[in-house]
Amino acid sequence: MSAPEADRIRPLRAEEIARWDREHDVVIVGFGAAGGSAAIEACRLGADVVVLERMSRGGGATALSTGLVYFGGGTEIQKACGFDDSVENMRAYVERAAGAHADPERIRLYCEDSVEHFEWLRSLGVEFKPSFHDHKVTHPTTDDSLVYTGNELAWPDGEVATPAPRGHKPAREGEAGGYLMEAILEAARDAGAGIVNDCMVERLVVDGTGRVVGVAARSFGEPLTVRARRGVLLAAGGFIANKEMLAQHAPDLLHCNYDVGTPGDDGRGIRMAMAVGAEAVNMSEGLILNSWYPPESHLEGILVDGRGQRFVNEDAYIGRTSDAMIRKADGLAYLIVDDEIYGQTQAFHKLAAVEETIEDLERALELPEGALVRTVAEYNRDASEGAGSSNGRGGRDRLFHKAPKWMRPLGSPPFAAVDCRVGRSIYGGLTLGGIAARATGEALDADGEPIPGLYVAGRTCAGLCREGRTYASGLSIGDATYFGRLAGRRLAAADSGSA
Amino acid sequence: MSAPEADRIRPLRAEEIARWDREHDVVIVGFGAAGGSAAIEACRLGADVVVLERMSRGGGATALSTGLVYFGGGTEIQKACGFDDSVENMRAYVERAAGAHADPERIRLYCEDSVEHFEWLRSLGVEFKPSFHDHKVTHPTTDDSLVYTGNELAWPDGEVATPAPRGHKPAREGEAGGYLMEAILEAARDAGAGIVNDCMVERLVVDGTGRVVGVAARSFGEPLTVRARRGVLLAAGGFIANKEMLAQHAPDLLHCNYDVGTPGDDGRGIRMAMAVGAEAVNMSEGLILNSWYPPESHLEGILVDGRGQRFVNEDAYIGRTSDAMIRKADGLAYLIVDDEIYGQTQAFHKLAAVEETIEDLERALELPEGALVRTVAEYNRDASEGAGSSNGRGGRDRLFHKAPKWMRPLGSPPFAAVDCRVGRSIYGGLTLGGIAARATGEALDADGEPIPGLYVAGRTCAGLCREGRTYASGLSIGDATYFGRLAGRRLAAADSGSA
Repeated sequence: MSAPEADRIRPLRAEEIARWDREHDVVIVGFGAAGGSAAIEACRLGADVVVLERMSRGGGATALSTGLVYFGGGTEIQKACGFDDSVENMRAYVERAAGAHADPERIRLYCEDSVEHFEWLRSLGVEFKPSFHDHKVTHPTTDDSLVYTGNELAWPDGEVATPAPRGHKPAREGEAGGYLMEAILEAARDAGAGIVNDCMVERLVVDGTGRVVGVAARSFGEPLTVRARRGVLLAAGGFIANKEMLAQHAPDLLHCNYDVGTPGDDGRGIRMAMAVGAEAVNMSEGLILNSWYPPESHLEGILVDGRGQRFVNEDAYIGRTSDAMIRKADGLAYLIVDDEIYGQTQAFHKLAAVEETIEDLERALELPEGALVRTVAEYNRDASEGAGSSNGRGGRDRLFHKAPKWMRPLGSPPFAAVDCRVGRSIYGGLTLGGIAARATGEALDADGEPIPGLYVAGRTCAGLCREGRTYASGLSIGDATYFGRLAGRRLAAADSGSA
Repeated sequence: MSAPEADRIRPLRAEEIARWDREHDVVIVGFGAAGGSAAIEACRLGADVVVLERMSRGGGATALSTGLVYFGGGTEIQKACGFDDSVENMRAYVERAAGAHADPERIRLYCEDSVEHFEWLRSLGVEFKPSFHDHKVTHPTTDDSLVYTGNELAWPDGEVATPAPRGHKPAREGEAGGYLMEAILEAARDAGAGIVNDCMVERLVVDGTGRVVGVAARSFGEPLTVRARRGVLLAAGGFIANKEMLAQHAPDLLHCNYDVGTPGDDGRGIRMAMAVGAEAVNMSEGLILNSWYPPESHLEGILVDGRGQRFVNEDAYIGRTSDAMIRKADGLAYLIVDDEIYGQTQAFHKLAAVEETIEDLERALELPEGALVRTVAEYNRDASEGAGSSNGRGGRDRLFHKAPKWMRPLGSPPFAAVDCRVGRSIYGGLTLGGIAARATGEALDADGEPIPGLYVAGRTCAGLCREGRTYASGLSIGDATYFGRLAGRRLAAADSGSA
């Protein structure tokens, strides 16, 4: 299918540009966490920077998020809360969290510079509170600043590195991503970056040598051409909002019915870079999030598939449990709870069935005869090994090594199945594929060579974390801000093009 | 990482070509099933065609294969063997076999033209025998020409379309792919195609408008430039032999330790096209093949994962069972058999354990306590519902709907676990991602627009079948030959470039 003319992204040639409306050292496309961080650093190094933002205001996906940032190696907050962490220990965990095919150089830099990067974010005015939120949550709502956000405590990761909480949330109640982004946006303005909102970059402009020398944009219907003396940074988000791209590159993510991002995450940044020969990699991977908890008590339930079999340790990070719901359970998953566990459930949870016995629940869910009964009996046997403990929790999960603190036999009727099926529950998604790039942002072509004048950061590039099933919350904002900074510094130091 | 100079694939500009050593209407890169079929058709329509083959002889992956081709809709062989089939019925099945995100136009054409395409292949001298091989096999070794090669009879596909065997094997014992390819190579030569062996195409050449106008190749160390008046067809295979590309695009396929292809399947064709702005899609998908049978009796065993749980219906096509071994069992799979089932096993099967009881087998495999015992007991209960039948087979597989003909309680000691683990058994793989293209071969850019002068076929493009877990044997050779023909015809009719 051909794209409509307005959606075309093939590059323009410099000789097709009759007039450059603006000219800057550095042109940044997208005013989210990556673009904003890059703008701050490039300006501070003396570059003349403009940021072109397609929405009416910057912020990007980060402004819509909880604002968790993955820091470690011994931040002041970690120390104040009594947690020992080191660069080496953080790195041992991040190597797993980033996925099997991540870039070792990105992992190394990210961990070595984590304390410095934390202080940099604080220096922008983002406040953190030295208090530890000792709960398993997907979106912490208190103003506590330290929380476990990945698989640090879950099998098998807990055996690889000494667990330490590394999710750092700004000291604000509720969702704190907006608060975090306000600090970045203000710092970028203060540093002197020019900001053009409501300005959608439509195409890159290349000269006869293949160097990217500017962009062609549109603002309120009017064309705007912007020449970039040192380079263009695409920090324009991922492609979760582009269903055609998902079908072509990341079919598993089509099961998601909630975009973790903005409508701007339509892949245009990635496609503009591909169209000048940049290589897109890791495109099939993404983070899938089915929030089957809170309440925290749900972790004491068991996740089963359409055969009534368990398929994952329930205390793993939801990126892993959700990936397993898709890949292992084929999108046909239920959380089985008893009345005590069910607790204060959330409005977005729907119940597939409620029955007085597991036998009836099995029938109501049309699971294979005897399958759920057997699974629960076996789980209860494993969990009853902790029956003697003071709070009734404990046991030994022979199948999936769920931690004893979440185990308790299911026994208080009625029993319910929280619906986690695709199409019946909320599956959020974001993409983890994008343009191949050096840690300092240079976009790479299929030969692994930098494309002169073109840089990428944030979800437009294949960044730090490459797999949703290994992910930890905070890695995306951490990646976008940190590598955005590196790209901004690199751009400020780049040679001017000869165009 | 930058590629070594010799491996670089960025296009050359026409003005960099000092001299065109050769000039033809149509330049075909790769003399496999796709390139050969294209050459035949283009020559027959009067085009001046050259085929550049990097190996010392054509044949490609097809020459190394069993030579199965997926034909249907009522071929003479199907009719002679007493099977009713129709275009509509074939299409209902191929829509599933091609995968959820396949191109409907390719499916339609492939099914509508299948009888014609079968007769075309016969007209090249490829013989088929009207005999049905009534066995579940991965690589039929007899000279029978008709066999079931997909999930036609397996749940749930058997409920969607009336099952009909569509795997057509040339009437030769053993592997027949070489025989099939000899006919295609000879027909291409007879039609007048020029053949240059030992000639590796290294880069495409583009003119100032972006049109592909030729190729730069190397033959025995000497450079060779070839101008293409009408166009270049890349029919250069997939990328299973390029482990770096697999890591970037198809990480699941890195579990494969046997390339279903040739060393030429290094992705160079795909990368050359990407480098001129063609879009690569479906890159994460591939066919994974763990041949845990023959012997056919193995289908009466049960596949279990590291938790001792079943995870797939064992009578599904091995593309599906192998995909499940990776995605559902995390590469930790065993086939559990008893002495009667074990039968005449193959040299490439290794046993992970052999024990007198299931309890001992469970312990030897270090499966969770009681898990395998329970799984076997339950399977035996399901299978014993057929105990009254004349051959002892039958039953009802409550979990996965395996067909009764493969069910029999496991009961004759000793019991064995055939090792299907990643790293301990053979996982073959081929890639199913490639350049986005029209059914007639025009390579498409990120806007969905054809790149003038550039065509793709075979595994270099994202073709008919997009998912290994839905695949049926014969779809790749069917796709390569049929869409190779369409591309050859399209190229013969293409306008000459203005370069």
